[in-house]
Amino acid sequence: MKTSSLALWLACAAVASAQTNPAALTARHWRESHERAILAEFMDLLAMPNLARDEAAIRRNAAAVSALLEKRGVKTRLLEVPGAPPVVFGEIQTPGATRTLIFYAHYDGQPLDPKEWATPPWQPVLRNRPLDKGGDVIPVPSSGRIDPEWRIYARSASDDKAPVIAIAAALDALKASGTALHSNLKFVFEGEEEAGSPHLGSILQKYKDLLGSDVWLICDGPVHQSRRQQIVFGARGIATIDITLYGPNHELHSGHYGNWAPNPAMMLARLLASMKDDDGRVTIDHFYDGIEPLSETEKRAVAEAPDVDRDLMGELWLGRTENGGKKLVELLNLPSLNVRGMSSARTGAQASNVIPSTATASIDIRLVKGIGPEAAAQRVIAHIRSQGYFIVEGDPDRETRMAHPKVARVTVEPGGYPAARTSMDLPISQLVLRTADAARGPVVRLPTMGGSVPLFMIEQILQVPTITTPIANHDNSQHSFNENIRIQNLWDGIELMAALLAM
Amino acid sequence: MKTSSLALWLACAAVASAQTNPAALTARHWRESHERAILAEFMDLLAMPNLARDEAAIRRNAAAVSALLEKRGVKTRLLEVPGAPPVVFGEIQTPGATRTLIFYAHYDGQPLDPKEWATPPWQPVLRNRPLDKGGDVIPVPSSGRIDPEWRIYARSASDDKAPVIAIAAALDALKASGTALHSNLKFVFEGEEEAGSPHLGSILQKYKDLLGSDVWLICDGPVHQSRRQQIVFGARGIATIDITLYGPNHELHSGHYGNWAPNPAMMLARLLASMKDDDGRVTIDHFYDGIEPLSETEKRAVAEAPDVDRDLMGELWLGRTENGGKKLVELLNLPSLNVRGMSSARTGAQASNVIPSTATASIDIRLVKGIGPEAAAQRVIAHIRSQGYFIVEGDPDRETRMAHPKVARVTVEPGGYPAARTSMDLPISQLVLRTADAARGPVVRLPTMGGSVPLFMIEQILQVPTITTPIANHDNSQHSFNENIRIQNLWDGIELMAALLAM
Repeated sequence: MKTSSLALWLACAAVASAQTNPAALTARHWRESHERAILAEFMDLLAMPNLARDEAAIRRNAAAVSALLEKRGVKTRLLEVPGAPPVVFGEIQTPGATRTLIFYAHYDGQPLDPKEWATPPWQPVLRNRPLDKGGDVIPVPSSGRIDPEWRIYARSASDDKAPVIAIAAALDALKASGTALHSNLKFVFEGEEEAGSPHLGSILQKYKDLLGSDVWLICDGPVHQSRRQQIVFGARGIATIDITLYGPNHELHSGHYGNWAPNPAMMLARLLASMKDDDGRVTIDHFYDGIEPLSETEKRAVAEAPDVDRDLMGELWLGRTENGGKKLVELLNLPSLNVRGMSSARTGAQASNVIPSTATASIDIRLVKGIGPEAAAQRVIAHIRSQGYFIVEGDPDRETRMAHPKVARVTVEPGGYPAARTSMDLPISQLVLRTADAARGPVVRLPTMGGSVPLFMIEQILQVPTITTPIANHDNSQHSFNENIRIQNLWDGIELMAALLAM
Repeated sequence: MKTSSLALWLACAAVASAQTNPAALTARHWRESHERAILAEFMDLLAMPNLARDEAAIRRNAAAVSALLEKRGVKTRLLEVPGAPPVVFGEIQTPGATRTLIFYAHYDGQPLDPKEWATPPWQPVLRNRPLDKGGDVIPVPSSGRIDPEWRIYARSASDDKAPVIAIAAALDALKASGTALHSNLKFVFEGEEEAGSPHLGSILQKYKDLLGSDVWLICDGPVHQSRRQQIVFGARGIATIDITLYGPNHELHSGHYGNWAPNPAMMLARLLASMKDDDGRVTIDHFYDGIEPLSETEKRAVAEAPDVDRDLMGELWLGRTENGGKKLVELLNLPSLNVRGMSSARTGAQASNVIPSTATASIDIRLVKGIGPEAAAQRVIAHIRSQGYFIVEGDPDRETRMAHPKVARVTVEPGGYPAARTSMDLPISQLVLRTADAARGPVVRLPTMGGSVPLFMIEQILQVPTITTPIANHDNSQHSFNENIRIQNLWDGIELMAALLAM
């Protein structure tokens, strides 16, 4: 697969998707005659601002998501703990079923800066091509073909309102065709995943009895970069650390004091540079200690995963990758350290000749099994200390700043959590894989996705395995501006959801 | 002086300022009965937005500055070249005078971000204490004492409209007292100094005949940190370089691609860190090559300059300084490299879990005699290349980014210029020093200021020496937000200007 182009992969994927799963086929037929209605319902949902911290907005979303389920005959209720967006819970009891499946998605979206978006993030638009390929905004045509390569642009178009709509459409299709269900179905749609799920644990605790199941199917994240369906058995954990370094107590004229007053931007550069080598390997002591090794099945899955690294490099305009050219799919099984943002004084037209007063970096660490968020954060903090910094948690006062040559304010953001990984050898894992293979052609099997979802919490509190069943295109600008979903991914997602709902 | 406090220094300065210069004394008496009128005229001038790039605004400033001079009987005209803010030129012919003095100041201000200001930058306010000491906005009292420790906050309050008002008030005082002038006087008030004086050279060339003189007195910059008057015989030059590094062609989800896609923020950190050691010494090859050494007189002046480093560290909350604890006044005679701004993706509440697409730093280099801006910039560029970067001038396309593991866009901003230094041993230098000593107590003599003004251009084109006669307080937040002037500095400045105008 090494030298194949994305185009070839698309062709392979098309052939491979000759389906044998009846529920998936049913869903396809139903979708083909209801595309406009599905898109209309989707775009209405995307038009609702959905930041977890915006309480009024997030409750409007919860009500809309509940209404979507109720419309399909799903009994819903809101699971609440104080100070948290509600979980929308829904349930379909299937007489005689011995298995219960929980479908998880989230209806909140990543924080954003509207100025960076080509069109407002909560005014969904259809484009006839990806934006970076010159896609224009077009109306949803009142008749004729809806090109599956068109895309919808809006916050949460992929992450993670698409699965909500895919499940709703799949339920419609199954009902319309009278397809029999074999499992009890539950739906858990969270409202603060992008804020790090700070209350999910207490909600799971409080509603433990309601949430009995055999498996959680996590409907989040992208399919494989080859566009093949993937089924993922874990997710990396996350720890987020903000670092602020201090220079003079206010910005200084860089001429009058440059050479003499320490520059916090330069100090930050030196500190960050000390954390990774030029090849991207983290040089913090013990950073890689304790990683739980992959099983033989998992190793085989990684080895068999399509190698699209070359294609991805072309797509992303990369002249190199980090970590000695190892495959992306391998590297996801290691912890990562990423500078997600960095700022000091001003650049561009507003830059001026100053020594900045502070410099800030925000770092996210992706965790794998065997390294918890506290351990990872402590390793980073120990490293900062080893570089000569006195560590403070709040803004340091004059006395503190004068008593120490170097002072760093380090904040470990709340909401970090460890990685999780379900064995591919479990019977439920095998069932999901067989179902997905039949619905969407031979699927890619991955021990972990690169991103983070709080799977550990579900496994820990409810003692139940999780399996991730994503539907979004990989190039969806998730977590960034101009988030989007490719229409074909939504269509494919409806078929996958139908197969899983009916399994 | 090493252990003296600022308070002690202030006391010394007060004693030392027992004046013997009659013009300065005259100016003091006149000022004492016209304080409100002076402040009113000043605040009207500060209320005018004055960015060099805002053509309409800058011309309104030029008209106002011309009017200020005309009001004092100075014949003015605008010196113009296409596309540039005008120089406001003024002239007073003194019958029988054999000497011509040019007073230089600039009426444009540094670019800014209004969001950072406590009060809007072009709505001047009086505060009863410095802002960082809890100063409140107060009205100018209609009667009673105006405390000389009060401050006026506005863009250009210090840099560089204060000298314009000080000269205007000094002219009023000299005229009212019938003080005889001994020199021909010319005024050159520039309108784009903060943009790097891109047209000053062509204006000097075009108006060479009009601008004959024996010396340019540069009324810009701050007095010594001890609050003593200083006379400065040079200024550092400047080169400004913007560097942008590239990661993926759009922001990526840091979970799905972190560890694999190179992070431009981390690359920038590594690149900047390679430019300086932990003690602030620049590690770029040849960076310090070619520095013209100080003369014996200059070395003595540096050695005799008050050492206020300890006090300054306390004032700026610094736990250390760079370059092995050398005195600030020594370090100003070396070139500096300063990160004036740095940015990549977002920090704070808008941070999100992405691999940034680009990272940018803006660097200013302060130059000393012997190293020109082109040479300094080329040394930095050679260094970036030595770190493995392919250098481009515009935004690199896909092909360029894929052909090179590391690509840096490097822009040397137009408007860099070399340092300048006038000998302290010239007769005109000695006259200025004697006059200033008599007007403002024993003054601090410095071979160079740390900041940059385009003195070289004047010296090169007009073949005339420059001497800098600053009046602003050192803690004026020049070039940053909340720029201000201490009232006493304005009063002292009026006296110094009166003495120089009458010399």
